[in-house]
Amino acid sequence: MEFPFEISARDGRARTARLSTLHGEILTPVFMPVGTQATVKSLTPAQLEELGATILLANTYHLYLRPGDELIAELGGLHKFMNWPKPILTDSGGYQVFSLRSIRAVDEEGVTFKSHWDGSLHRLTPEKAVAIQENLGADIIMALDECPEPKNYEYNRAALQRTHAWARRSLDAHRRPDQAMFGIVQGGIFRDLREESAAYIGSLKFPGNAIGGLSVGESKRETYEVLDWMDACLPEDRPRYLMGVGTPADLVEGVARGMDMFDCVLPTRLARHHTAILRHGRLNLMGAAYARDPLPVDPSCSCYTCANFSRAYLRHLVQTREILGATLLTIHNVSLLLKVVADIRSAITAGCYHQIREEFKPASSDVTPDS
Amino acid sequence: MEFPFEISARDGRARTARLSTLHGEILTPVFMPVGTQATVKSLTPAQLEELGATILLANTYHLYLRPGDELIAELGGLHKFMNWPKPILTDSGGYQVFSLRSIRAVDEEGVTFKSHWDGSLHRLTPEKAVAIQENLGADIIMALDECPEPKNYEYNRAALQRTHAWARRSLDAHRRPDQAMFGIVQGGIFRDLREESAAYIGSLKFPGNAIGGLSVGESKRETYEVLDWMDACLPEDRPRYLMGVGTPADLVEGVARGMDMFDCVLPTRLARHHTAILRHGRLNLMGAAYARDPLPVDPSCSCYTCANFSRAYLRHLVQTREILGATLLTIHNVSLLLKVVADIRSAITAGCYHQIREEFKPASSDVTPDS
Repeated sequence: MEFPFEISARDGRARTARLSTLHGEILTPVFMPVGTQATVKSLTPAQLEELGATILLANTYHLYLRPGDELIAELGGLHKFMNWPKPILTDSGGYQVFSLRSIRAVDEEGVTFKSHWDGSLHRLTPEKAVAIQENLGADIIMALDECPEPKNYEYNRAALQRTHAWARRSLDAHRRPDQAMFGIVQGGIFRDLREESAAYIGSLKFPGNAIGGLSVGESKRETYEVLDWMDACLPEDRPRYLMGVGTPADLVEGVARGMDMFDCVLPTRLARHHTAILRHGRLNLMGAAYARDPLPVDPSCSCYTCANFSRAYLRHLVQTREILGATLLTIHNVSLLLKVVADIRSAITAGCYHQIREEFKPASSDVTPDS
Repeated sequence: MEFPFEISARDGRARTARLSTLHGEILTPVFMPVGTQATVKSLTPAQLEELGATILLANTYHLYLRPGDELIAELGGLHKFMNWPKPILTDSGGYQVFSLRSIRAVDEEGVTFKSHWDGSLHRLTPEKAVAIQENLGADIIMALDECPEPKNYEYNRAALQRTHAWARRSLDAHRRPDQAMFGIVQGGIFRDLREESAAYIGSLKFPGNAIGGLSVGESKRETYEVLDWMDACLPEDRPRYLMGVGTPADLVEGVARGMDMFDCVLPTRLARHHTAILRHGRLNLMGAAYARDPLPVDPSCSCYTCANFSRAYLRHLVQTREILGATLLTIHNVSLLLKVVADIRSAITAGCYHQIREEFKPASSDVTPDS
């Protein structure tokens, strides 16, 4: 099975395309809401479909630990398990293992880590990460990579050799023809390492390539610089996935540098912390200023939350710790990110991408790390 | 404005009717999901409408404390505030004040209590309870009553005099013609007090009458006995509302004794404690037995949860403390109660109410107090 990626329009280095998978087509640039534990926190799949989400991300690390990938396979795979009939992407588990600082040992073969859940020891190798993801059954799966601290050159150089060997082994181990496996470029903030990594990962002919190790502490300028190098090195005819990004402004700037796919926990996590994302800025609904405010969260937004509820009601819900507060804010935040990528696609098609870049230029919100 | 209550069929003492309010018609017998703080916990109003709920209950005590009834009035009333266009019933606040054991003093005029929220002192009188409920703007409001421990005769006799005086004062204070005010019968488990109370409250010509002070510790046999007395004493041509009840079996037995309206936090509270209500019995989804169970919660149920998700998935959600677990179980539990009252109405219309009583006879689940 192939995974056609048909580019329909370009504007500068930004492009819009259609990526086909067994469970449906994805228009890129795309934002993927994160369903860490086989649920996008506080939303039903029906609500996600209504929002227009076309692909979700789920976390291999979490699902491997609970409820277990074999159990999910036995029950018919992740799509059936969580009742999401459209495309799913699973990460390799590497990011969580490295970022949760639960590593016990890294060697050429793989990584030994401690479960954050019950302290038990587990071993993740490229082959194991593929086997888990084959059990989960997502449409797009990721090769295992090592995610080092981005500013340590020696560590990044050593880790890169492992990441490259692991990418090759992941491809060798992968059996399911209905899944597209993406490779991941690493190399921190270092141009030579990033270019070497992009050339090597690109040469392996993955149907898509991801850029890992960004938005984990480096500056926004450094992130954009890495993306500029990547755009020049990575195969142009397949999707580029910028992992763990981000804010509306980050999406716009990523697309301007040839990126196609994005995921971030920001919309769901901020929603559970009383915060609405706006096109420019944020609104913390806990604020007393909203106690009597009859306006919707975002008067220009047409989502279910903004069409039906006032800031005063949302402030009441978050103040009284009602679950519905998280649900309504998640609906708005996910809706907003999906609207931004829809606007991005329209702007590319219309050939006016500079306008959307101009709109988002003044924003200065920070890139926040993935979970 | 009147509140027509048109009885369309009877079977024994059970009856089915249509109660009309400004915000819509209610077919009785009816179960009212509880939206304590202007939200039925974990559900959107859209989900509640999809479930077929025709009337919700909201709590005066909670909304008076947060966000405040004047704020809700300023924002257009409770229907608009919580985006629920159909009928709403508010209780008087009395039950919460008495059951949360926050009483500082009860006198003939009213009751002084301490907020469970911030410890501040407040005063509730019949007039104040009416004023708050006029601000909230529900379709059906309740007269303030005193809710004593049901087995103390002397206390019940003294409290009854206050409850009766407060009922009269509530009627005198009530101004909004678009709201139906119901009176509440008290009297514990004592026949003379209950009959005296029903006769007095009935004589005040409220458009509906409620039975309070049950399902708070007395036995099921005692509850049914009180209902038998009430059926004989209360006006037959207006709705009877059995407050804080209950389980499917309790609804069936209440209707068999001439009751028309019910509310209970059981379906929403159990859902947040991993528990699905079945027609007979319950299912605690935390159980390891469900870890690999591909069946829906209730194979005979057609709700969104049972149509789309396995017990194994729900077990995963509750084990990982995902919000969606509470939402999906609430959808099922509320749906089940609404289905039971729909079956009750059909059975009355078809003249086969004995069949539904037979079906629910073996169940022995307990009546659980309202919150």
